[in-house]
Amino acid sequence: MSQWRRRRGAPSLDDVAGNGLINRRALLGRGLAIAGSVGAVGTATAAAAEPLIDEPWTLQFGQNTPPSQSPSPFEKDVVRALSNPNAEFRNSHARTPHQLINGTVTPSRLHFSINHCGIPNVDPAQHKLVIHGMVRQPLEFTLETLSRYPLVSRMAFVECAGNSAGMFAKQPLQAPVGLIHGLVSNSEWTGVPLSVLLDEAGIDPAAKWLVAEGADAQMLDRSVPVKKAYDDALIAIYQNGEHLMPGNGYPMRLLLPGFQGNMNVKFVHRIKVIDQPAYTYFETKNYSQILPGGKTWRFHFVMEVKSFITHPSFGMTVGEPGLYAISGVAYSGTGRISKVLVSADGGKSWGEAALQGPIHQKAFTRFVMPWRWDGQPAVLLSRAYDDGGNVQPMRAEFVAKRGEASNPVTSPLQFPNQHYNSITAWAVDSEGGIKHVYV
Amino acid sequence: MSQWRRRRGAPSLDDVAGNGLINRRALLGRGLAIAGSVGAVGTATAAAAEPLIDEPWTLQFGQNTPPSQSPSPFEKDVVRALSNPNAEFRNSHARTPHQLINGTVTPSRLHFSINHCGIPNVDPAQHKLVIHGMVRQPLEFTLETLSRYPLVSRMAFVECAGNSAGMFAKQPLQAPVGLIHGLVSNSEWTGVPLSVLLDEAGIDPAAKWLVAEGADAQMLDRSVPVKKAYDDALIAIYQNGEHLMPGNGYPMRLLLPGFQGNMNVKFVHRIKVIDQPAYTYFETKNYSQILPGGKTWRFHFVMEVKSFITHPSFGMTVGEPGLYAISGVAYSGTGRISKVLVSADGGKSWGEAALQGPIHQKAFTRFVMPWRWDGQPAVLLSRAYDDGGNVQPMRAEFVAKRGEASNPVTSPLQFPNQHYNSITAWAVDSEGGIKHVYV
Repeated sequence: MSQWRRRRGAPSLDDVAGNGLINRRALLGRGLAIAGSVGAVGTATAAAAEPLIDEPWTLQFGQNTPPSQSPSPFEKDVVRALSNPNAEFRNSHARTPHQLINGTVTPSRLHFSINHCGIPNVDPAQHKLVIHGMVRQPLEFTLETLSRYPLVSRMAFVECAGNSAGMFAKQPLQAPVGLIHGLVSNSEWTGVPLSVLLDEAGIDPAAKWLVAEGADAQMLDRSVPVKKAYDDALIAIYQNGEHLMPGNGYPMRLLLPGFQGNMNVKFVHRIKVIDQPAYTYFETKNYSQILPGGKTWRFHFVMEVKSFITHPSFGMTVGEPGLYAISGVAYSGTGRISKVLVSADGGKSWGEAALQGPIHQKAFTRFVMPWRWDGQPAVLLSRAYDDGGNVQPMRAEFVAKRGEASNPVTSPLQFPNQHYNSITAWAVDSEGGIKHVYV
Repeated sequence: MSQWRRRRGAPSLDDVAGNGLINRRALLGRGLAIAGSVGAVGTATAAAAEPLIDEPWTLQFGQNTPPSQSPSPFEKDVVRALSNPNAEFRNSHARTPHQLINGTVTPSRLHFSINHCGIPNVDPAQHKLVIHGMVRQPLEFTLETLSRYPLVSRMAFVECAGNSAGMFAKQPLQAPVGLIHGLVSNSEWTGVPLSVLLDEAGIDPAAKWLVAEGADAQMLDRSVPVKKAYDDALIAIYQNGEHLMPGNGYPMRLLLPGFQGNMNVKFVHRIKVIDQPAYTYFETKNYSQILPGGKTWRFHFVMEVKSFITHPSFGMTVGEPGLYAISGVAYSGTGRISKVLVSADGGKSWGEAALQGPIHQKAFTRFVMPWRWDGQPAVLLSRAYDDGGNVQPMRAEFVAKRGEASNPVTSPLQFPNQHYNSITAWAVDSEGGIKHVYV
């Protein structure tokens, strides 16, 4: 065999920023050779000869094909982190393990879930959604009747306003990214536009708010501007193709793309159309962000532009020096991600990451940045920009405006603990170990 | 309350085709009122008063939040249909229940799976992918080393070439759409472009084919043109965000978007670069389509443009006359869906359905068509078009070219049973019952 080729020519491996960030165009050329061309002790290993063909599983008839398939037993640790594993009589959080997943869809079994009074076991044959209040004609809908409507599907993230609350702490939490940022997940949601149902009920022009209430033991309720209902709200009945997970609102939930998670009322059983907000518990006590000086934000709903690096991240070890990919997710409650910058030198210099398209509104966008690690300490950051002109703030800037706290996790209600959207920094040491740092 | 409004004006409910197909622009106006404005006995039910708030699940603390959540017990019948439920010593098919799901993502637990020798329980720490043959330097990759590469994500359907084989029968199979068309599913796949790995190994310009081989007991192998490898092939390691399901190739599979499912080699453990196809069992015996006259198609890989209606479909009952949505999936192994036409009068007249965007290459596109059912018999069809100019054929045209068989399901190898992409017709009777018919 005489000649060897690179189909699309050698890619550019120009550095675009300090500590080895490589121009993302290297990815477009499809020729980023990690072991071959760079000569680093690389990702691939040279194989001496013909492959072995005696793997034990090739020597026996395999396992049965089940009606509903589950992950491999080797994936048993890919689960959510629980805040209340013994089901004590209090609220319960299950966090998405972002360090263990990839792509943009959060598998439904790993979608985050917060339940203040447990998860109701709702019988869809008995469940009704009633729309009433300032309407011409109150209406009720079941899962079956909603299924008759023209349904729309969209990707959307849902994020708890308290996601990343640990980042308000004065010292960086040493924990996997899923424990820090695991109260956000991303799914394809399918349902009926709320505007269609409101139009059908006929809403009074004087109506400015809705109160949505869930059928859990707490009957969690939140006020929602009518404007949002007509913008892009859905009554969602499918999540990633199948009916909603119980912890995500089965059989139906309100989906308010980009608004804080708690407003996306699960198990929604009524929507009352009114002319003023209801000032419920979760919009006056728990989800009113306390600001330095003791004032609070009232009705601050949109989850701000944000990103974090998932690979590599805390708890992983970077191997031998050589080429790696830095990857993470970015999203904005305002619209589409327009750009993600990555730094490997703690923010001194930045390179633009490749974005995985198509880029959806108010949904996860995965970014990837090729990186040549030279074995020296490095500090990895990501910073997201959206198409509304919003920029993820640096931490100093964020803390100056929003405050910090000695322990926002153990005493969340006494401290600023909402809407954290600043930058997460991972420090790689010369052994490849990764710690959480503030920059 | 004096005045009632429709925010975006009343939608057009003009018929665009026979038997009540309505202009899809009615959906854009977001004001398609099913019960309210049309006066039909409709989807929503007028609610007399305040909603009830005594549902049993509101009266007690709910269930625990588990580490990995599962569907509601009320969804226990949403499973795949098995061809070999007792795990006899032969092949096994699990079909996606398209009649029970919606949106475009197939939940991973319900992705179709065919296994000829059971599902190997592969230990990812022991599994290797070797690329060898006509290469400068043979290379081997593990799940861990592949994870170091810049990964790309894309939506893609995978369809068994034998999907819909029952449609070659002379009489229409009376079965749910998932039994007829359940060997196609759609996921977000994340992995490394195969071109990157081939470039790294350095392939000989004389190489024209690859042979990909799986680590199942059968070591299933298929020949793949090098051209396809450089077009859009991936070594996929994530499916809808998490590592592959065992039945879909854990820990890694070849993904050849748009090519017949069997070529998307699961548990892939080697790729040998060669200068001619290997003429393996599955490309000479089993997946060579037999044509009328006894000739066969050789190396006919692309799954053709196709669509089928999932809602309503066989086994469902349309309720009272009134407004409904006709919905289904369309896809093409060539590229993007450009248009889906729907007929409610057995093909005499057609209206253009709304397509749910964004429209991905070689992936499911869901279509929706508003329909006013007058309670009379109707025959529902869908017909897909792709951006390569391909049109889903009518059945008479298809059968004239491809043949039909007395029983392609029980004796598949004696009959034409591959690459069925013609139209599926659902006949609605005056009671709302739905049968499968040929038109």
